[in-house]
Amino acid sequence: VKVIVIGTGTIGSAVAALAADNGHDVLTIGRSSGDHQVDITDTAALRRLFSELNGFDAIAVAAGEVFSAPLAQTTDDQWADSIASKAMGQINVVRTALPFINDAGSFTLVSGILSEEVTSASTLGATINSVVEGFVRSAATELQRDLRINCISPGVLTESTDYHQFFPGFEPVPAARVALAYVRAMSNPYTGRILKLHNADF
Amino acid sequence: VKVIVIGTGTIGSAVAALAADNGHDVLTIGRSSGDHQVDITDTAALRRLFSELNGFDAIAVAAGEVFSAPLAQTTDDQWADSIASKAMGQINVVRTALPFINDAGSFTLVSGILSEEVTSASTLGATINSVVEGFVRSAATELQRDLRINCISPGVLTESTDYHQFFPGFEPVPAARVALAYVRAMSNPYTGRILKLHNADF
Repeated sequence: VKVIVIGTGTIGSAVAALAADNGHDVLTIGRSSGDHQVDITDTAALRRLFSELNGFDAIAVAAGEVFSAPLAQTTDDQWADSIASKAMGQINVVRTALPFINDAGSFTLVSGILSEEVTSASTLGATINSVVEGFVRSAATELQRDLRINCISPGVLTESTDYHQFFPGFEPVPAARVALAYVRAMSNPYTGRILKLHNADF
Repeated sequence: VKVIVIGTGTIGSAVAALAADNGHDVLTIGRSSGDHQVDITDTAALRRLFSELNGFDAIAVAAGEVFSAPLAQTTDDQWADSIASKAMGQINVVRTALPFINDAGSFTLVSGILSEEVTSASTLGATINSVVEGFVRSAATELQRDLRINCISPGVLTESTDYHQFFPGFEPVPAARVALAYVRAMSNPYTGRILKLHNADF
């Protein structure tokens, strides 16, 4: 199984490592690192990249940025950039890869705990995560050729110690556990599922 | 109570009429009709308008457009325009009105049945509605000065006969019933609620 991992950060690296351990043929894609480079806000660049990969069976996305600030202090640019990156960036990946992914292939996107839980400045993050989850649930009903799509919703990562202060009382989750969920979603007949790795569930 | 109704279509007109019947002081705002005109994708214009209204107690939004097409046929522009209009347009209204709305005021936004139900081409609509609902649920936890925010999720309107063909087997809802939900949300201590007026609930 040929797996494309988009995102070379903590989660993307863990997913790539685990998928390789599981015997998959892994290709990594980052904005400025990985086997190939692409900016997920650029649909033309994504289309070009996917057309050149000679087919693939799974795309796992662990990319996209979200600003964080109390709602009243968020700016137009923070909203626009967050929508363009983590929300539309992931939707761009699915839409542009559709003509090139093999039959019965899978997409695995990433949302996050803030779609369900709140912190003192979570509205922007919650909104972005809701975009991704809403898209995944509905796209699962529209995909053809036995394609599947799922979403991983991690809590704050154990490894992201700088962020722990923004999640007081929340139990961090190790990236290796998040990676398991990605491989679970891509390797089993899941579709339209939101796999949660955060407080509400463990 | 001074109520601003944004949107002069079937729902907005019904909300304005019912709010007036309930003794409220109603101001209507449309893109090209109503007491004042504004484009909700233009945050500078919104800010200017709200600053000139001398305070208000409630904003009810029934505006914003979403394109509809099977996922594989949706275009970059359809996604961008839908996000800018019904999703970010409503978020723009809340963000720009925040400094001007009176204490204990309320926002009532609109999503729609597709965040929960599916039709044969619902992914774009589902995603947009999920943006609005995710925003409302989280913003309710962040608003200060006893401000409240809720969301109305209507099914296809009885009056929108052209759209009935896209919702086979779905029971339409009259705009007058949707208007009741808006007035219920603005007049009672609701916050963070999604009031559903569609099949799943009646």
